[in-house]
Amino acid sequence: MIEDKTPQRTSIAQLGEFGLIDHLTKHFEIKNPSTLKGIGDDGAVLDFHNKKTVVSTDLLIEGVHFDLAYMPLKHLGYKAVVVNVSDIYAMNAKATQITVSVAVSNRFPLEALEELYEGITLAAKHYEVDVIGGDTTSSQKGLILSITALGEADEENIAYRNGAQQGDLLVVSGDLGAAYMGLQVLEREKQVFEVNPNNQPDLDDYTYLIERQLKPEARKDVAEILKALDVKPTSMIDISDGLSSEVMHLCKQSNVGCNVYEEKLPLDPQFINVCEEFNIDSTTIALNGGEDYELLFTIKMDDFDKIKGNPNFSVIGHMTQESEGIHLVTRANTRIELKARGWNALQEE
Amino acid sequence: MIEDKTPQRTSIAQLGEFGLIDHLTKHFEIKNPSTLKGIGDDGAVLDFHNKKTVVSTDLLIEGVHFDLAYMPLKHLGYKAVVVNVSDIYAMNAKATQITVSVAVSNRFPLEALEELYEGITLAAKHYEVDVIGGDTTSSQKGLILSITALGEADEENIAYRNGAQQGDLLVVSGDLGAAYMGLQVLEREKQVFEVNPNNQPDLDDYTYLIERQLKPEARKDVAEILKALDVKPTSMIDISDGLSSEVMHLCKQSNVGCNVYEEKLPLDPQFINVCEEFNIDSTTIALNGGEDYELLFTIKMDDFDKIKGNPNFSVIGHMTQESEGIHLVTRANTRIELKARGWNALQEE
Repeated sequence: MIEDKTPQRTSIAQLGEFGLIDHLTKHFEIKNPSTLKGIGDDGAVLDFHNKKTVVSTDLLIEGVHFDLAYMPLKHLGYKAVVVNVSDIYAMNAKATQITVSVAVSNRFPLEALEELYEGITLAAKHYEVDVIGGDTTSSQKGLILSITALGEADEENIAYRNGAQQGDLLVVSGDLGAAYMGLQVLEREKQVFEVNPNNQPDLDDYTYLIERQLKPEARKDVAEILKALDVKPTSMIDISDGLSSEVMHLCKQSNVGCNVYEEKLPLDPQFINVCEEFNIDSTTIALNGGEDYELLFTIKMDDFDKIKGNPNFSVIGHMTQESEGIHLVTRANTRIELKARGWNALQEE
Repeated sequence: MIEDKTPQRTSIAQLGEFGLIDHLTKHFEIKNPSTLKGIGDDGAVLDFHNKKTVVSTDLLIEGVHFDLAYMPLKHLGYKAVVVNVSDIYAMNAKATQITVSVAVSNRFPLEALEELYEGITLAAKHYEVDVIGGDTTSSQKGLILSITALGEADEENIAYRNGAQQGDLLVVSGDLGAAYMGLQVLEREKQVFEVNPNNQPDLDDYTYLIERQLKPEARKDVAEILKALDVKPTSMIDISDGLSSEVMHLCKQSNVGCNVYEEKLPLDPQFINVCEEFNIDSTTIALNGGEDYELLFTIKMDDFDKIKGNPNFSVIGHMTQESEGIHLVTRANTRIELKARGWNALQEE
């Protein structure tokens, strides 16, 4: 989607591969002291000194992970970085570098790639990561984005998925489900637009939800806040597939069970309103919506006082013996077994 | 291409994303002491101690970078790893880890992915790299592979593209052009097969060339040999696009010129024979063929005696003043300006 109404269209072939890479990457600045050499050689060279290196990677495919009908390219570039640095933050680490590989079919002019890289550049600045390499090539169909993120942490601060203990508290940052409802709003508007292209959508009541879907932010701040509070999470994961799915990952890898309390789930008022408008159960979406990019983690019970009342965090449950299983405790105080239905399952309903 | 004539076809959807990742990655063993945590969390955790970290990444797209009509999936998996570790070796570093992301359309059954991962596993073993992460997803069309390689080196040993000096000798490992001619043979056979599917190709005269195309090897040994010879390359690059193109990269980034001697280009006898058979000029292919994954590097003149006569290396030229330009000195002793035509340009002729 090119927002400029009279777009210039420069064929990518005019620049050639090396010209294209030079053109797209010339604005990237190196800011992290750990980056010794960025783009321009066979490989980048990094120096993490006595820190540990954290690595994560994601592949994003047009038509599978995003729809350019309502996702502007600049937002896509931004979000692709967010998704990746979120994985680094989910190790309780600091993101420091990314590599960005892009494949596009010939339907994309240079100006479209420039928009994509604008979003990538903006996110790299915001999250203070250096773009240190990548690959640019043609695809047979659509846009393909592959990003690898690197980060650093002191070994004692790294939070794995398998460290939760019975009795630990389950904590989530931010609020849940808004990204999923944002997508529902956008899909409804797309259908309205297809029926009547002159219809001007009024999206004022949905701004927060749409922003959570189109321009999510990763929780760079959580590691910093926890450090300041002197809280070391015992386990941690980011919420990409949905809360239920991620709770089950933590439980499975830590060999514990869990009780999640429905009344404790943090929901934004706009999210609650729109769930009512769509006649969808807000708890179901909060549990299974996905793409929130919040962090889910466990802390020792003794650390409760340190995070109690902190506006960034909600304690939503506690870890139990593995044999007790994984349950949602409803407002009516009944226990329902949690199932990871995730994003795809929801869409198929 | 599935070699088994009565293949079993298991739908990928049956396993689900997490089941699929578990299934494909369960055979990966961690061997490098720098890998603290591999697959199974939000990110891998590595420890390079006092070494520098080298990072490189590549995106491979079906129909652009490979053709499954003559590239078996196992070979593709192997080659994808080779292409990436080659970039690490081209920094005079040791490859230690890779991440592997794969997207496939629903035309690929599980058995096809298993074949692909067999090749990846084989290469990971051969090059002693740990597979530490990745992503598995569906594509709208074809197979997409994205690999990021990590490596380590002492800072003083890292060879950049920009370190060549006037008077340095230009050296290449192995021989040139064979991978390109291997592709020509395979494309001819593909056409023959399309005309007459019962025709059994006799490829005995082309085994070396076909192997160089379908199962190239990266020069893991070069850094080790150079270290043993006490030679520190002043600049280095790997030959993916073709010798001419890579010579020009070294010259441009080092601000030097270069004379390459036609009579010094290392050519395999089978390569020379097949160039004659195809009525193609062998020097043109040796200069522009690409995909050889040999290493091209410069050394100080004083180090000549250390590598003289070493069967792994050929001195093919020397670096000059930048103002002298970049030339091929032919057998007839005429100087022709080198142009980077590369792989794609050749195919369009």
